[in-house]
Amino acid sequence: MSDPLPTGATIGILGGGQLGRMLSVAASRLGFKTHIYEPGAAPPAGQVADKVTTASYDDRDALQAFSRSVDVITYEFENVPSAALDLLEAGCEVRPNRRALKTSQDRLDEKEYLETLGLRVAPFANVTSEQELDAALTAIGAPSILKTRRMGYDGKGQVRIKEGDTAKNIWPQMNETPCVLEGFVDFSHEVSVIGARSADGQVACFDPGENVHRAGILHTTTVPANLTAAQRTDAVLLTGKILNALDYIGVLGVELFVTPEGLIVNEIAPRVHNSGHWTQNGCVIDQFEQHIRAVAGWPLGDGARHANVVMENLIGADMDRVPKLAGDPNIALHLYGKAEVKSGRKMGHFNVITPK
Amino acid sequence: MSDPLPTGATIGILGGGQLGRMLSVAASRLGFKTHIYEPGAAPPAGQVADKVTTASYDDRDALQAFSRSVDVITYEFENVPSAALDLLEAGCEVRPNRRALKTSQDRLDEKEYLETLGLRVAPFANVTSEQELDAALTAIGAPSILKTRRMGYDGKGQVRIKEGDTAKNIWPQMNETPCVLEGFVDFSHEVSVIGARSADGQVACFDPGENVHRAGILHTTTVPANLTAAQRTDAVLLTGKILNALDYIGVLGVELFVTPEGLIVNEIAPRVHNSGHWTQNGCVIDQFEQHIRAVAGWPLGDGARHANVVMENLIGADMDRVPKLAGDPNIALHLYGKAEVKSGRKMGHFNVITPK
Repeated sequence: MSDPLPTGATIGILGGGQLGRMLSVAASRLGFKTHIYEPGAAPPAGQVADKVTTASYDDRDALQAFSRSVDVITYEFENVPSAALDLLEAGCEVRPNRRALKTSQDRLDEKEYLETLGLRVAPFANVTSEQELDAALTAIGAPSILKTRRMGYDGKGQVRIKEGDTAKNIWPQMNETPCVLEGFVDFSHEVSVIGARSADGQVACFDPGENVHRAGILHTTTVPANLTAAQRTDAVLLTGKILNALDYIGVLGVELFVTPEGLIVNEIAPRVHNSGHWTQNGCVIDQFEQHIRAVAGWPLGDGARHANVVMENLIGADMDRVPKLAGDPNIALHLYGKAEVKSGRKMGHFNVITPK
Repeated sequence: MSDPLPTGATIGILGGGQLGRMLSVAASRLGFKTHIYEPGAAPPAGQVADKVTTASYDDRDALQAFSRSVDVITYEFENVPSAALDLLEAGCEVRPNRRALKTSQDRLDEKEYLETLGLRVAPFANVTSEQELDAALTAIGAPSILKTRRMGYDGKGQVRIKEGDTAKNIWPQMNETPCVLEGFVDFSHEVSVIGARSADGQVACFDPGENVHRAGILHTTTVPANLTAAQRTDAVLLTGKILNALDYIGVLGVELFVTPEGLIVNEIAPRVHNSGHWTQNGCVIDQFEQHIRAVAGWPLGDGARHANVVMENLIGADMDRVPKLAGDPNIALHLYGKAEVKSGRKMGHFNVITPK
């Protein structure tokens, strides 16, 4: 690809959900067209994209045609199948790169990689059998969480292990899926850093946000987060370390547990992240434009924060609150245009804005 | 139409230029789909719209199909032909209403209407012949400007009249087109107010901006404008008066000359306005979302300004400045995705943001 991409170029986006939708809108601000690749019909991102390809990730012809029709490819989710990436990369550069994707697709690889960078993660053990789970429970103990190595998100693919649970009771629930047992971390709260790295190695991080989850799904992100100046610096520096180590291009989300002994990396996401939605109303350049700038080979925007923000997700029946929220002068609404309201489905979010 | 429109509804937009494009993006934030109606091929708005109809304004079938496929119709330009509106209104409500369009389509009607509201306008005279131009020049004098009553914008369809010009010299240039002669106003500067009115009569105005033109085209808008508190109040009140008098729904731009004797209305535009682009980076809810909220029957957003902004247009070869502007941390870029750079063509704009 030519670096930087000229305005008017087309950015291919794998995935047509709300993240793809907001990436598409951000791309339009810089004069780019977008082309969405999504297996599901009528994707939310398709409503604001120049083109949509509806095809599965094992449709070789569709993948090849897509990769030839765009100037760079990025993605809204990390679980793009490896064989699809092989085909896509033959036609067009994919950003962020393969290594970032591979590392974050597998919880075991991710934790091992973060440790090689000298970062702290929760105690963990690879579990592929009842015997290994038994050994892991002896080493790590309970409470702990058994997670599938691949494809889990929003609390799916996880089993909480409590005192008294045994490998014999738990393992049959996992259908022989390779797992990681994660030890309990005694953290006071979770924060996340949305960092970005440009094609020429410039790094910029947004202010860390403080996350509260409900039923395994992000509920709110608050900026500023409750952090000491030293913790804030640590959070930003370790994010920069990951970005540089991965030779990363784009936006990366890093979830961190805050403990008295320091920050522990929970997980990384090689994409724009729900906990970065506050940037839409707290910064001049939000995480979506920052990602588009990076993958297009443009300079990063300034991530300085001009307001205090509480982002709250609208999940399922929360949509009933929209009429009231729409009339609140301190609130900016962001709705995803999803046709059907389902329990647990992310339908939108809103940012409550107060002067800094 | 049902008022308010539910999220997921479709907003029809007449015109596929940059205003339609930014309206479409704003609509997506509230979960609306958009359908663009535009005679020209490959409209900039089509890149971020759910649907595009490419058809002329005298294509009865296309107009009828369009109006039946959307939940409300709005427009990015005031010169929608009357016959097209008849067809559209038969299928779907058009907002802002017909009266606002009719008033602003004709400079003579507009000035006469504003006078009936007790507002001041420049001295003017209807000119449909050489004799009338001669009489008007006697009454109004020079310098003055002869403007076509209809279809003029960005300085097109205008002839400047200087001392010594005669009706005999000037009139043949106008091809028998009905005109208005506008007398010279000795103003210190021009400001504009972007006002909005909701379906239930709520009115909100953004802070007035100060406009500088070059070669008849808006060059910069600066907020805050250079106005006394009394002038600012006058500007906002007269905008509210126009909005209420027209029973208006949507965003309206009002251009005002600032003179020692008070504010004189230059012209009104029944749509989002170039001089309101600063709101994208100066307010939580910008003029585009404000317009979408109004035409969808939603409550208006808060128009409070949180930053000082200078908006500058990127016209034609100004696009060469984009790489440098993209790297400036105080600048937000907004590019329109137009394929071809032409002299005098609006290609984008940028907002220079400083803390308030």
